[in-house]
Amino acid sequence: MKLIMAVVQDKDSNRLVDALGDQDYKTTKLSSTGGFLKEGNTTLMIGCEDENVDRALEIIRDNCSHREQMVAPVSPMGGNADSYIPRPINVEVGGATVFVVPVDSFFQF
Amino acid sequence: MKLIMAVVQDKDSNRLVDALGDQDYKTTKLSSTGGFLKEGNTTLMIGCEDENVDRALEIIRDNCSHREQMVAPVSPMGGNADSYIPRPINVEVGGATVFVVPVDSFFQF
Amino acid sequence: MKLIMAVVQDKDSNRLVDALGDQDYKTTKLSSTGGFLKEGNTTLMIGCEDENVDRALEIIRDNCSHREQMVAPVSPMGGNADSYIPRPINVEVGGATVFVVPVDSFFQF
Ligand code: NI
Ligand code: NI
Ligand code: NI
Repeated sequence: MKLIMAVVQDKDSNRLVDALGDQDYKTTKLSSTGGFLKEGNTTLMIGCEDENVDRALEIIRDNCSHREQMVAPVSPMGGNADSYIPRPINVEVGGATVFVVPVDSFFQF
Repeated sequence: MKLIMAVVQDKDSNRLVDALGDQDYKTTKLSSTGGFLKEGNTTLMIGCEDENVDRALEIIRDNCSHREQMVAPVSPMGGNADSYIPRPINVEVGGATVFVVPVDSFFQF
Repeated sequence: MKLIMAVVQDKDSNRLVDALGDQDYKTTKLSSTGGFLKEGNTTLMIGCEDENVDRALEIIRDNCSHREQMVAPVSPMGGNADSYIPRPINVEVGGATVFVVPVDSFFQF
């Protein structure tokens, strides 16, 4: 048995919980902030058997990988709006920091 | 030394913290949601010596076991209120998911 | 690799996160309450290599040690305000409860 502690971005967390649930992984969300990732992250606790850890890691990677996203920039304040041509810019999103912790014993009451 | 991570229902958490405190267990509550149990759960971290783990588990089981509760149902909307006889129904409440994690070292500053 | 779970007082947590960050420790804050310390505490998760645990503990001790603070008392309600001489009193603040947990594996996606 392992306890997987995964720190992911808020925006990825619901999709990840759904994807894990589809594969019968049970998760608990802890509200968390800052640090490993930018503000607005969530820490998921996922308990699973040793043989299911790799599949869980795969699901986390598939749903939370660090990636770039094209976003429309806001127009520059005080700039010449007429000559301003908005170009989408790359923003880094996602990412996951994952600790796999050993579990001595597990109980459900 | 062990770190017990116990996910319990919100409604059971205060009683559990009190019962643990009565036996000199120190707990920290982490706010958490969803997953192992229905919405509205709490994750308790309980640090204790190896020989005190069993007693802590017993207290968790005594205070958070999965159980059924009789509740008065709300009357059906739009139904015929005159002929409606409210019958108490069974609702499943409680339950605890508990991970016992090894601790390499412990400090108090 | 270790996962350090440190429960500290809210008022010490920002200073601690900054001090840890200055030394390249990444932290995640979990909101928590009660128990190990008085109300209003924060649980920090700090992931680090084995050889960096001692330095992290030192930073936690330096920033969160249990200590006494002189505070101006509020004047007693209903007392004789004229004859009341406010004397600063000692209040206990700070303190940290720290668990160092082994990590089987660590991933960043
Ligand atoms: Ni990048
Ligand atoms: Ni049942
Ligand atoms: Ni003291």
